[in-house]
Amino acid sequence: MVQSRRNFLKAATATVISTGIATGTPLNLFSQSGKSSGLVGNKKMKLSFKPYDLQLRHVFTIANSSRTTTPVVLTEIVYDGIVGYGEASLPPYLGETQASVIEFLKKVDLEQFSSPFELDDILTYVDKIAENNTAAKASIDIALHDLVGKIMNQPWYKIWGFNKEHTPSTTFTIGIDTEEVVKEKTREASPYNILKVKLGRDTDKQMIEAIRTVTDKPIAVDANQGWKDKHEALDMIYWLKERNIVMVEQPMPKHNLDDAAWVTERSPLPIFADESFQRLSDVLRLKGAFSGVNIKLMKCTGMREAWKILTVARAANMKVMIGCMTETSCAISAATQLSPAVDWADLDGNLLISNDCFRGVTVVDGVLRLNDRPGIGIEKI
Amino acid sequence: MVQSRRNFLKAATATVISTGIATGTPLNLFSQSGKSSGLVGNKKMKLSFKPYDLQLRHVFTIANSSRTTTPVVLTEIVYDGIVGYGEASLPPYLGETQASVIEFLKKVDLEQFSSPFELDDILTYVDKIAENNTAAKASIDIALHDLVGKIMNQPWYKIWGFNKEHTPSTTFTIGIDTEEVVKEKTREASPYNILKVKLGRDTDKQMIEAIRTVTDKPIAVDANQGWKDKHEALDMIYWLKERNIVMVEQPMPKHNLDDAAWVTERSPLPIFADESFQRLSDVLRLKGAFSGVNIKLMKCTGMREAWKILTVARAANMKVMIGCMTETSCAISAATQLSPAVDWADLDGNLLISNDCFRGVTVVDGVLRLNDRPGIGIEKI
Repeated sequence: MVQSRRNFLKAATATVISTGIATGTPLNLFSQSGKSSGLVGNKKMKLSFKPYDLQLRHVFTIANSSRTTTPVVLTEIVYDGIVGYGEASLPPYLGETQASVIEFLKKVDLEQFSSPFELDDILTYVDKIAENNTAAKASIDIALHDLVGKIMNQPWYKIWGFNKEHTPSTTFTIGIDTEEVVKEKTREASPYNILKVKLGRDTDKQMIEAIRTVTDKPIAVDANQGWKDKHEALDMIYWLKERNIVMVEQPMPKHNLDDAAWVTERSPLPIFADESFQRLSDVLRLKGAFSGVNIKLMKCTGMREAWKILTVARAANMKVMIGCMTETSCAISAATQLSPAVDWADLDGNLLISNDCFRGVTVVDGVLRLNDRPGIGIEKI
Repeated sequence: MVQSRRNFLKAATATVISTGIATGTPLNLFSQSGKSSGLVGNKKMKLSFKPYDLQLRHVFTIANSSRTTTPVVLTEIVYDGIVGYGEASLPPYLGETQASVIEFLKKVDLEQFSSPFELDDILTYVDKIAENNTAAKASIDIALHDLVGKIMNQPWYKIWGFNKEHTPSTTFTIGIDTEEVVKEKTREASPYNILKVKLGRDTDKQMIEAIRTVTDKPIAVDANQGWKDKHEALDMIYWLKERNIVMVEQPMPKHNLDDAAWVTERSPLPIFADESFQRLSDVLRLKGAFSGVNIKLMKCTGMREAWKILTVARAANMKVMIGCMTETSCAISAATQLSPAVDWADLDGNLLISNDCFRGVTVVDGVLRLNDRPGIGIEKI
């Protein structure tokens, strides 16, 4: 029954392509229990993957686009009968696709490593396979963390030394829409303690005022680079501050760090880098230009680098938030492991889809709640 | 059999003070097996500690002093029948004493925490009990890491994602002495691949030349702030470079960062901060002034902060070495867990004493060798 890795993957991919894509039905390739029968004692890591399309509950609109689905690729790494789950989420504006992720994953040879614990070696190798491809890389990183956590029989928040009582509320995003729809969505968001609004259009003030007719809850604002003039941005931030907006993401175009620094220096609210920030190597460069950074697993290659970013940002006296794409409870639960240590969490990506294939972290009274399942804390639905 | 913590510690300290100090004999308080019988199921952490005096194999001389013993305090934290071991090493020039450590440890109330996994909360609390006292703090940190690693049944190098095949050679220190003794010590150091020489006296060149009559092995130099003029320091570094010296620690007085930066900028060898560097909060301030930092658990409060220092230094493109005091195999084994990720290791502190009370990491062909025991990888002798 021993197959070469190349044949194994070829077979896996063929199966995926012939039967799996459109429906998102779990393939036989993917076990249901987290235990892969017949592979106990196999001390080689086996990687498999399949594309999956997330169905959005609402049309998702940001400054430049709208959509109703988000493509992802789900990964599994099996080692000694234990399965680690991972995910690459691929919102179209970031440039990766299911095809590019699968092409990347086909190049990954985990069998050369003797243990999934060698995260430093493995993830350095994976990072060097190709430039960018950060979501593909994260799908390996998350599956490895899930696997290693399961071997140690502990969730990562514990391995990292955090207390699950310190998880923050997650923001819940109110999409850009007509005033009436925005009010309706705001009412539907009543279980959440803090709302997130994506601004950067002519209708920004109307959006906020519409929400304020419904609730006084704190709001986090993501301008998505939508404000082009630093003076107007600062005026807007002062206007927002008076309306209980508590933080602002990415007010200015991403490469314009001078204007970002000008705004941050004068802003009464903390200013976070989102599009301006991607990886660990960016953190120290952004000190001064922003109050903090928004860590997203899909942009920073996963949990290991996210943990390092948190550490470096804190050493630089910067604030930290953790965000997400539209994702299943797999990647959201992975990100939530870090959340006890952040200032803000924006981890509602799994709440916005109708076909989540994992059970993981939950939101109780608006607060992220970690469970004690090992690894990233998920099980298949 | 339930004792209040206060009474437990009072009893423990009384025992220590009445019977344990002078001889260093393990007390009943300290178990031999790593399992504390009768406490399985006790989900409170119990801290105990005792002073112990390390006997040095050779008189130890640095720029300003000589001595034949080093005082330490050994700690244990018992939780659910599992014992974690820690150590505070107290070379006199750093200001902590057995008395000051014991005074500090008496203030530490671990019973308020529900789990040793809450390292972030616990170590933040410990750090705030008093200023400084970094070795006392490290003795808690190390014992907690040992405990948590044992609960997960994994050594920390694996939990941190490192590969034990990447451990470096350790430097082995040749103390300042007469030319003949230095030559003899150099011959005795033949098992080691890289020597360390503490300079900063008028006899610096003689020392190096004496060693070079015996061996061509690479040498790391620690000037211990001993060079007072930056031009002379740079001349000396060029002289050393020609004699296969491979790195220099702390050439200039510790507060003189301008001169350190001047030397580092012009130096053909990497320059490391030792006395100029203590904790995580110093790393980014030293960028530019030094090529790298020397992490010592006793100065940085332990393994958790050491890991963060490594991460921040790497993000700042700085080199990292890990050093030690005169220590038992307890603290040395703890530090060695990080060593697969550093550029240089100076972890010979346990090799210099004759009454080590732990078995842990070894040195094979001059290279640090980690074992697969969980936690920090030690057992009592």
